[in-house]
Amino acid sequence: MCGIVGYIGDKNVFPILIKGLQRLEYRGYDSAGIAIYDHSLNVFKRQGKVSELEAFVADKNIEGHSGIGHTRWATHGEPNNTNAHPHQSMHGNFVLVHNGIIENYARLKKDLTNKGYTFQSETDTEVLANLIEYFYLMDEVTDAETAVRLALSKVVGAYGIVVICKSEKERMIAARKGSPLVIGIGQGEYFLASDASPIIEYTDSVIYLNDGDVAIVEKNSLTLKTVQNDPANFKVTKIDLSIGDLDKGDFDHYMLKEIFDQPRTISDTYRGRIRANQNEIVLGGLMDVFPRLVEAKRIIIIGCGTSWHAALVAEYLIEEYARVPVEVEYASEFRYRKPIINKDDVVIAISQSGETADTLAALKMAKAKGALIIGICNVVGSSIARETDAGVYTHAGTEIGVASTKAFTAQVTVLTLLAFKLAKGKGEIDQKLYETLIQEMLEIPQKIETILMSHPYIKTVAEKYKDAINALYLGRGYLFPVALEGALKLKEISYMHAEGYAAGEMKHGPIALVDDNLPVVVVSAKDDYYEKVVSNIQEVKARKGNIIAVVTEGDNGLRKMADDLFEIPESHPAVAALLTVVPLQLFAYYIALLRGCDVDQPRNLAKSVTVE
Amino acid sequence: MCGIVGYIGDKNVFPILIKGLQRLEYRGYDSAGIAIYDHSLNVFKRQGKVSELEAFVADKNIEGHSGIGHTRWATHGEPNNTNAHPHQSMHGNFVLVHNGIIENYARLKKDLTNKGYTFQSETDTEVLANLIEYFYLMDEVTDAETAVRLALSKVVGAYGIVVICKSEKERMIAARKGSPLVIGIGQGEYFLASDASPIIEYTDSVIYLNDGDVAIVEKNSLTLKTVQNDPANFKVTKIDLSIGDLDKGDFDHYMLKEIFDQPRTISDTYRGRIRANQNEIVLGGLMDVFPRLVEAKRIIIIGCGTSWHAALVAEYLIEEYARVPVEVEYASEFRYRKPIINKDDVVIAISQSGETADTLAALKMAKAKGALIIGICNVVGSSIARETDAGVYTHAGTEIGVASTKAFTAQVTVLTLLAFKLAKGKGEIDQKLYETLIQEMLEIPQKIETILMSHPYIKTVAEKYKDAINALYLGRGYLFPVALEGALKLKEISYMHAEGYAAGEMKHGPIALVDDNLPVVVVSAKDDYYEKVVSNIQEVKARKGNIIAVVTEGDNGLRKMADDLFEIPESHPAVAALLTVVPLQLFAYYIALLRGCDVDQPRNLAKSVTVE
Repeated sequence: MCGIVGYIGDKNVFPILIKGLQRLEYRGYDSAGIAIYDHSLNVFKRQGKVSELEAFVADKNIEGHSGIGHTRWATHGEPNNTNAHPHQSMHGNFVLVHNGIIENYARLKKDLTNKGYTFQSETDTEVLANLIEYFYLMDEVTDAETAVRLALSKVVGAYGIVVICKSEKERMIAARKGSPLVIGIGQGEYFLASDASPIIEYTDSVIYLNDGDVAIVEKNSLTLKTVQNDPANFKVTKIDLSIGDLDKGDFDHYMLKEIFDQPRTISDTYRGRIRANQNEIVLGGLMDVFPRLVEAKRIIIIGCGTSWHAALVAEYLIEEYARVPVEVEYASEFRYRKPIINKDDVVIAISQSGETADTLAALKMAKAKGALIIGICNVVGSSIARETDAGVYTHAGTEIGVASTKAFTAQVTVLTLLAFKLAKGKGEIDQKLYETLIQEMLEIPQKIETILMSHPYIKTVAEKYKDAINALYLGRGYLFPVALEGALKLKEISYMHAEGYAAGEMKHGPIALVDDNLPVVVVSAKDDYYEKVVSNIQEVKARKGNIIAVVTEGDNGLRKMADDLFEIPESHPAVAALLTVVPLQLFAYYIALLRGCDVDQPRNLAKSVTVE
Repeated sequence: MCGIVGYIGDKNVFPILIKGLQRLEYRGYDSAGIAIYDHSLNVFKRQGKVSELEAFVADKNIEGHSGIGHTRWATHGEPNNTNAHPHQSMHGNFVLVHNGIIENYARLKKDLTNKGYTFQSETDTEVLANLIEYFYLMDEVTDAETAVRLALSKVVGAYGIVVICKSEKERMIAARKGSPLVIGIGQGEYFLASDASPIIEYTDSVIYLNDGDVAIVEKNSLTLKTVQNDPANFKVTKIDLSIGDLDKGDFDHYMLKEIFDQPRTISDTYRGRIRANQNEIVLGGLMDVFPRLVEAKRIIIIGCGTSWHAALVAEYLIEEYARVPVEVEYASEFRYRKPIINKDDVVIAISQSGETADTLAALKMAKAKGALIIGICNVVGSSIARETDAGVYTHAGTEIGVASTKAFTAQVTVLTLLAFKLAKGKGEIDQKLYETLIQEMLEIPQKIETILMSHPYIKTVAEKYKDAINALYLGRGYLFPVALEGALKLKEISYMHAEGYAAGEMKHGPIALVDDNLPVVVVSAKDDYYEKVVSNIQEVKARKGNIIAVVTEGDNGLRKMADDLFEIPESHPAVAALLTVVPLQLFAYYIALLRGCDVDQPRNLAKSVTVE
């Protein structure tokens, strides 16, 4: 959420900044801006996407060898030129870019106003710029670094910042708390960015800045310290990212590419975790803590958005197969409500980016109470991955599409393996069932290939419903979370108000929405709920709603009842979520496309929610 | 869901049936029908409300002294004249009304079709009528009662039925499994109904039929037996219902009356449960089981719709104050997914009607596993109240409005008292805080009076937003369930697609819906979440959404940010849900009114969901 890029060295800075911002654009695209230090310090910013900025600077002086850039997801103040980053301090001494939220900005702004400061924008970031300047102009402060540290010590909230001081051209100052910041180490040059994507072409050596640390970056030197001016620990690591991940290939959109990637990303995720003779699951990252997991009295799974849906699938799987009570919580609710966490509880945190602010804060809280913390993240080395006691990576590759697809199925894959392994470890399932379930998992990629082949048909169904205003998605059991996820996809990228419900809840309210204009998507499989789902369909049909049913191949009963059908290959109910979600991803994609929406960069959203 | 009425005696039956159907109409209003046995057996039925039926029969022969009536909420087959009840068997021997769902109807229909039966309607009920007739026409069967019992023994599903056999004019046969049926005992006459409301004027002595029982009712005799032809147990009780509850007084709608009833219904609910010196909560119904409750390792709360929202409030209260882990489950999901229930778990089932099919089935399952079952119901003597080990009634009085209002606040009142009492019993709060919380509860009715006085203002705000297509409702903590409940009210009665969300989830998808047409209702109070809610509002405002904020009186910060404000008196956060929900009930009411919707009988819905 918001993207930062910075460079200091001998190269021409503008292409580095612009290309970096394009790479980061999935993190926010309300506005974009750059500051380039040549003879003078020039700031250019523009509402809208990076391409708007690029057009705007075409006739400007963009020469220079150091600079910073920012692509914004608006929190305070609407997206416009004034609120765009970089922000300058009132007297022009500082220019900075910021990712995060300064929570006490109203108070700080009032204090600064009393001291004579005026503000151009509605942002919390400008407050921070002026606060730094205020300290800088105090007699006893002689350098920018000290001013930055003093200012940050007054700040409540989250930040990743890069600061340029007009009178210290030779350096940039970066700091992080809560919002990620990576330093790329080049030859006589340094790169700064919210994630490794803008850096990858130039170097593979990076330092992930720790919370509470400040970096003083010059062309030929790097100093790391804490906000309190103590020495900081750091580690140089290699980037785990391939440039191919950043390319959408022959696909029109990243999202479509990522949907089609799923057979591969799912097998990448289980590969090496299922023994060659297919009789055992091995989760290396959990090896040391597995005995504690087997003894757990309760498992709490936390996540947000799509990750929360993956958690719901896991709740059903773990309770059914491993017989451990599972509670699923929104990270944003969990962290604030004095939850009960015991030492023998296990907390699983799920986050694609590994940077989700609420999830990170929630797991820190649980950790402080002594629970075992397991992370399921996609981004290697991310904050959540680093904070957890143990974890399993989803090997889905970089996900660029703002609406998560392959990360969701990779999360469900990991959680499914974990549930089966735990069930076996607890002696709740026998070897035969265990092997059957493993075999079912191994067949998923091929079955998804089959579903993907039906994409032209899914598009024709999407054409039929593209002008609907609302939609309901219904499911039961393992497919209830799939209904939620299908609805979320549609909402995110097509702005059609789709809502997911446990099908049994329909009669308790949502059925009032049903009329002959309403598409109702019913997710079904050949499971114990089948008859109940049929009853729900009849109730909708009795009110003239349109039924789009996800059904198992050859289900002629539902074929007669439904207006439109998406067929999926037959599978064990325990893995059906991985199949049934795929046509819903494609359905959302085509609806959005046909409505003329920007699929990869839907309005108001951004990838990697690093603010609360 | 679906209403049944029946009468046999010396009175003119038509007014009893029609008045009864009007009383029962809140249970379904897709179609209505009656069968009256005079010299011949005449059936009249009509799509639409009871008034349509009344107009239709104006010129018909409606003389007679026994008969049955039905008001339908459609499950199988759309609402039309053909699918309306009563249904007749193919050869005309039987006429019956039915509430519930015959799950194996497709199979039974196929068998009967093979035997030469044809069907007029798409209903499961007609299948049952023909199945009874099929048995009746077998050589070895000589009476209607035996035929009914044989047919019911083949049926999978739920039913409350009343059957008339053409050749047995002197009697009616009733049976129940899953769907409630009450027998009113008069002088030389009997009444039959889904609930006591059609009976109350004639007698206060009733028998609630038990599941699996059959009643053979004649003018001067009543025989009860089981489907297996064994003697049945029964108990004659007094109706706990006042005729005043069935009257909407000076109000335009039952819903409005019930919203305005809340100061009284809440105090009725806590009266007698708080000691005069206000230092102790006494829950008589839980006295015997309280030690088990104090020892509980886990509390599971099950409910559907609005009751599920009340359960979420309880989860937050019990976890925060009594420090016991609480899990809240949709009854419809819980019952089917092999949940883990231990002997030291406590299961709380919440249902206004006490007849909610899914909740009832879920609690029976939990009971079988040895957990302590506590019921929180509004209807005295209802199935759930009878099935539980202990319980607390909400004394909200009969709720007629299909959209629940006073039942919700009464449920929250009971659950709040329970949470406080449990916290005290476990030694988690001291006497001082306990008394403060009790005092806060006692002040709620007066504070709601204040909110109700602002109804003309709430109406003016509703005018502003009445043409919106969608709405989002956001809240955090105790007010997250209030956001869900507020959205559900609007959806139920105005058909505006409103969706509730935990405010922290907004950035993970729903914010994509925000534009300058979208009203966003933010529920806030002076609690620990306040600052976070302010950040959410700014994110919405940055995207030009319209904010309607529920705020604490004198909150000038939000006054500046919000487009419209509903003020509530200051209160302790633990009881704020009871206040904040009230303006949202009124807001939904006025929006529905201004959109010309039928507030008390919203389309597709019905009170008391007695089918799955």
